[in-house]
Amino acid sequence: MTSRHIANHRIVLAAHPRGLPTLRDFRLETTSVPLPGEGEVLLRTLYLSLDPYMRNLMDEVGPGYAQPIAPGQPMVGGTVGRVIASHHPGFSEGQIVLADGAWQDHVLADGANLLPLDGLARPSLALGGLGMPGFTAYVGLLDIGQPQPGETVVVAAATGAVGSVVGQLARLKGARAVGIAGGDDKCRHAVEKLGFHDCLDRREPGLAERLAAACPDGVDVYFENVGGDVLDAVLPLLNLGARVPVCGYIAHYNEVAGVGGRDLRPGLLAAVLQKRVRMQGFIILDHYATRHGRFREEMGRWVERGDVVLHEDIVDGLEQAPAAFIGMLEGRNLGKVVVRVADE
Amino acid sequence: MTSRHIANHRIVLAAHPRGLPTLRDFRLETTSVPLPGEGEVLLRTLYLSLDPYMRNLMDEVGPGYAQPIAPGQPMVGGTVGRVIASHHPGFSEGQIVLADGAWQDHVLADGANLLPLDGLARPSLALGGLGMPGFTAYVGLLDIGQPQPGETVVVAAATGAVGSVVGQLARLKGARAVGIAGGDDKCRHAVEKLGFHDCLDRREPGLAERLAAACPDGVDVYFENVGGDVLDAVLPLLNLGARVPVCGYIAHYNEVAGVGGRDLRPGLLAAVLQKRVRMQGFIILDHYATRHGRFREEMGRWVERGDVVLHEDIVDGLEQAPAAFIGMLEGRNLGKVVVRVADE
Repeated sequence: MTSRHIANHRIVLAAHPRGLPTLRDFRLETTSVPLPGEGEVLLRTLYLSLDPYMRNLMDEVGPGYAQPIAPGQPMVGGTVGRVIASHHPGFSEGQIVLADGAWQDHVLADGANLLPLDGLARPSLALGGLGMPGFTAYVGLLDIGQPQPGETVVVAAATGAVGSVVGQLARLKGARAVGIAGGDDKCRHAVEKLGFHDCLDRREPGLAERLAAACPDGVDVYFENVGGDVLDAVLPLLNLGARVPVCGYIAHYNEVAGVGGRDLRPGLLAAVLQKRVRMQGFIILDHYATRHGRFREEMGRWVERGDVVLHEDIVDGLEQAPAAFIGMLEGRNLGKVVVRVADE
Repeated sequence: MTSRHIANHRIVLAAHPRGLPTLRDFRLETTSVPLPGEGEVLLRTLYLSLDPYMRNLMDEVGPGYAQPIAPGQPMVGGTVGRVIASHHPGFSEGQIVLADGAWQDHVLADGANLLPLDGLARPSLALGGLGMPGFTAYVGLLDIGQPQPGETVVVAAATGAVGSVVGQLARLKGARAVGIAGGDDKCRHAVEKLGFHDCLDRREPGLAERLAAACPDGVDVYFENVGGDVLDAVLPLLNLGARVPVCGYIAHYNEVAGVGGRDLRPGLLAAVLQKRVRMQGFIILDHYATRHGRFREEMGRWVERGDVVLHEDIVDGLEQAPAAFIGMLEGRNLGKVVVRVADE
């Protein structure tokens, strides 16, 4: 039995958002966590990951692959933390670990779901390119998309946590990587820093025409993470036998059910049919058991060699997480969004 | 050089239809065909196949996998014919063959694209269950859908040329076949004659609720040939890892571009993602080289044994083809629609 507690700051869901979340949909609370009991570990959160999937957990009806968050419950998210107290034989004070955490500055964990990050020079990368988003890019592009040398791969949110890795892996596999991103600065970053062959600013007019010009041999793999206008622009360019791994559709996450324009579904079916497209949804949670070991090994090597460059957009302070999250949904970040909750 | 000709009746496209074709979009013409030259074969058409894909060829912009038909050109279609004159060593007078023909009562062919149907008791079946529609069901269900024993397979147009074979093959593979069809008579036919486990009348209200009740274990394979309301009803029922072979989307073939309701595409993407669905378009023409031999062997045996029952909706007279085609697009047929152009 533990009788001592320490203060914990956390951000809870105040209300289910309608459309794009606002700051009023979140609330900062101070609670307390007990010191760890037998087999438990107490972590000080160093970094909190912000990812688009979290938006789906904020709705009253969840996405099926994870529980929705009820008002009053803490926002969930991956964290990197330092062990500040351990009653678990596998973990010692000062160790840095990856946790299935929440938007809070302390985590009480039972040790079973903690992954030690010993020896990782930048532990926050375990939330980005070396973690779930990188693994999503890896499985989606390599296992489902299967780009061949000389093929053309298109990905939007090209400077985001997932898209930036998709483009770099496509290039490593000898494919032509064409990115789409919001803004000229991001496009320059994609080409100059990440090695995309081309990158188009989705805010400029004529995306469909510009994408057609940038993909003179059509599109063999479209890594779908946005939907919307980008999907419209890609569909006519898909080559026969194209592959479309479906990772997300962030352009629609903030749509209010029942509100929308024309029914574009027949056009999607037509493209799938006529181009013999294989469109396959995947949830990265399914693939840890079989593919994560190989991913860590390969991606670790690529990052070490500089073959894959990982850019982070670091925001300081837990209290900034809601604004940073909203900004990410609006595409205001450049690279993987990480909240620095405490200094290493 | 041939100087003698014989009269040929044919039906040409009079105008690109807007929406559902009308009789005015077709025109019956009398032309002439020459007697066969060296290496050529002249056929008297016995049976003409009517299939939904033809609707897509009638638009100004074709579907990509086949040339659109220009006004004044004959409507295309598979035919079964009897050789009435041959200057080709491989074919002799009186022989029954399958041809890539047109809506006409004589076909002049070069012999390369003719398939002899010797020994087939009902040669018209080469246009249906033993031909392209049956092969479409076979490849789509078995190669892409891959139903496992105990799984649930849903197919609409359950008494049509393709759907009726899909349901029977699903049953042969030990799966539960749930059909959807337009009308109580068709549903009875599907269950009593074709061996579907259940069949729902899509004209009755509450399709989504009734389908959910008919699929208590969800849907593992949805053979997509209609789109529209049926797709709406199926999406929420898809199980994790469901397969959706996309063969067509007839509910939308007559839609005029730019006219439609809400944008339902995000819901489709959500289902593909959350349920890890594999949705794959296919065009049956791609599969003849690799799979047709095995199909003919297996399907021939199943039909001979009575494991697969093939029901035809036979219409007499070439001049009736346009009305029968329009009727098929409206779902007025029961079974594979075949026009008997001449008596065997």
